[in-house]
Amino acid sequence: MDMNLDAFADKIMLVDNVLNESLRGEVPNLHDAIEYHMSTGGKRIRPLLAIMTCEALGGSVEQAVPFAAACELTHAWLLVHDDFQDGDRVRRNKPAVWVKYGAPHAVNIGDYMAHKVFQLILKCSYAGVKDAVVMKLINEAVETTLVTAEGQAMDMNLRANDSPTEEEYTKMVSAKTGRYLTMPIKGGALIAGIEYLSSRIAEFGTQLGLAFQITDDILDLTEGKGRGETGRDIKEGKRSMMVVHCIGKCTKDEREKLLQILNKPVEETTNDDVLYAKSLFEKYGSIKYAQEKAEHYSDKAKQIADSMPPKLREVLHFFADYIVKRKR
Amino acid sequence: MDMNLDAFADKIMLVDNVLNESLRGEVPNLHDAIEYHMSTGGKRIRPLLAIMTCEALGGSVEQAVPFAAACELTHAWLLVHDDFQDGDRVRRNKPAVWVKYGAPHAVNIGDYMAHKVFQLILKCSYAGVKDAVVMKLINEAVETTLVTAEGQAMDMNLRANDSPTEEEYTKMVSAKTGRYLTMPIKGGALIAGIEYLSSRIAEFGTQLGLAFQITDDILDLTEGKGRGETGRDIKEGKRSMMVVHCIGKCTKDEREKLLQILNKPVEETTNDDVLYAKSLFEKYGSIKYAQEKAEHYSDKAKQIADSMPPKLREVLHFFADYIVKRKR
Repeated sequence: MDMNLDAFADKIMLVDNVLNESLRGEVPNLHDAIEYHMSTGGKRIRPLLAIMTCEALGGSVEQAVPFAAACELTHAWLLVHDDFQDGDRVRRNKPAVWVKYGAPHAVNIGDYMAHKVFQLILKCSYAGVKDAVVMKLINEAVETTLVTAEGQAMDMNLRANDSPTEEEYTKMVSAKTGRYLTMPIKGGALIAGIEYLSSRIAEFGTQLGLAFQITDDILDLTEGKGRGETGRDIKEGKRSMMVVHCIGKCTKDEREKLLQILNKPVEETTNDDVLYAKSLFEKYGSIKYAQEKAEHYSDKAKQIADSMPPKLREVLHFFADYIVKRKR
Repeated sequence: MDMNLDAFADKIMLVDNVLNESLRGEVPNLHDAIEYHMSTGGKRIRPLLAIMTCEALGGSVEQAVPFAAACELTHAWLLVHDDFQDGDRVRRNKPAVWVKYGAPHAVNIGDYMAHKVFQLILKCSYAGVKDAVVMKLINEAVETTLVTAEGQAMDMNLRANDSPTEEEYTKMVSAKTGRYLTMPIKGGALIAGIEYLSSRIAEFGTQLGLAFQITDDILDLTEGKGRGETGRDIKEGKRSMMVVHCIGKCTKDEREKLLQILNKPVEETTNDDVLYAKSLFEKYGSIKYAQEKAEHYSDKAKQIADSMPPKLREVLHFFADYIVKRKR
């Protein structure tokens, strides 16, 4: 199976059309900024998960599109706020919204987009989704963002933690990343009229989220994730899978030096600091450990998917593979 | 009629109980921060409007309480984000959330609270509100926040505008302040099963919002609005009703000096600058003009209320008076 999402361009176009129409407007430093942010691209994993899940369970693609757009928009506004919170100045090789429009506007822009999410979900009614299902979709979107915000707080708290454990990392990632990879799958199933899979989908999403985040941690070191440089996470002091593993393995002196680098303000961290951290990760096999962990969670996700209806199983296997094999 | 809200302590307690229960949690720099922010107080105008409207139209107080709590929480999270956006360091005589917890956490805290709003509205189902009405309440909350965010963008844009007109001011305030004073009244009516008043309520809310904001502009100069000083708006370069009026009346030299003061960074604006702006407002009768305008909009609001059912009319008259006569 080809490991990119180009084959689904027709579905992506349906989603983008709904998003473009929904986000149009005339207020300067708001609608223009949203158009700018949305035009920077993105893989569209979440809307595809929503549509393909719905389709695989016998539901209508058309009915799933507004919700799929809502999933992508959830991802998009979280990035607008996250980039400011993390001090990320570059997103998809372009200036982040808070850099281009200023932090005050960026906060407001994210708030506006976050509420457009619910407007899109309410639009499912017009596509023929029953009110009772729309209410469940709204509930899912609300719970998802609440858990994601808890995960984001844990992530920021963990950056002030000098002995982060793998358990804390796993808990944070399950909240911050896993939950909002679950939302499109659960929602897609609900639109197809399938509720009995919800808890298994949540288990799948948690494993997928862990595989996704650990792969993201690795890609930041190797490919750079469109943030203008590799090793950005080290500058930001992020407690990545590699940091958590390495801190538990290295000597006391190495640990102190690594923490000193991680805890420096972003602008004071040099490229030599980043190289030192990388070399330490290599010395203790932390990158290899992270790769194995990502594979492990991807495999666990696939095992859970094995108990699902065959067509859905195929879709979920595809994404479980894609997520650890992607290069961006 | 007594011009404070102490008489409604029993209703406020119902709302506060629901809020306290809904916002409880264990994540550091999130739930503790929300508790901190909520404990700084607030007048609780919006939840009272929701409950008293519902009651006046024959609806159940109990059914209105979760929605009333959602209205208060909408106000509360908007303040968390607004204080950061405006550079307001003090809120209700205490450090603002972004000052106490840092801007990155403050953004996340506001996001979390914004989604608790929808969790509270969904809870109306448990209080016996029909699903179709809950969907309308959600729609109202979504549209409200979208318009408010548009107004907030306009407000920030207006601060970069050296010839702000009263028309631009009125448009900005109608979006930023009017809409989310409308939400509790409209929602309260919907819970009572009354939909035919919606457009008249929206007209009332627009006038009430203008009266509210202009009174707020004046209180910032005279009483200080719990932000640690008077004249804070001048330091922030806000285009208040007085600024808009004065700029249209004063000489070219005075106009230039006033704009220079308004356009300085907050920390560079001296107390002498504030005194100069105040003296200019007095010279041109801008404060008096603003007071008359606030009264005018309050009167217009009351005229609109005159066409409503008698019990609701009484409630809305009370708030239209309260809003221009309050001292904080």
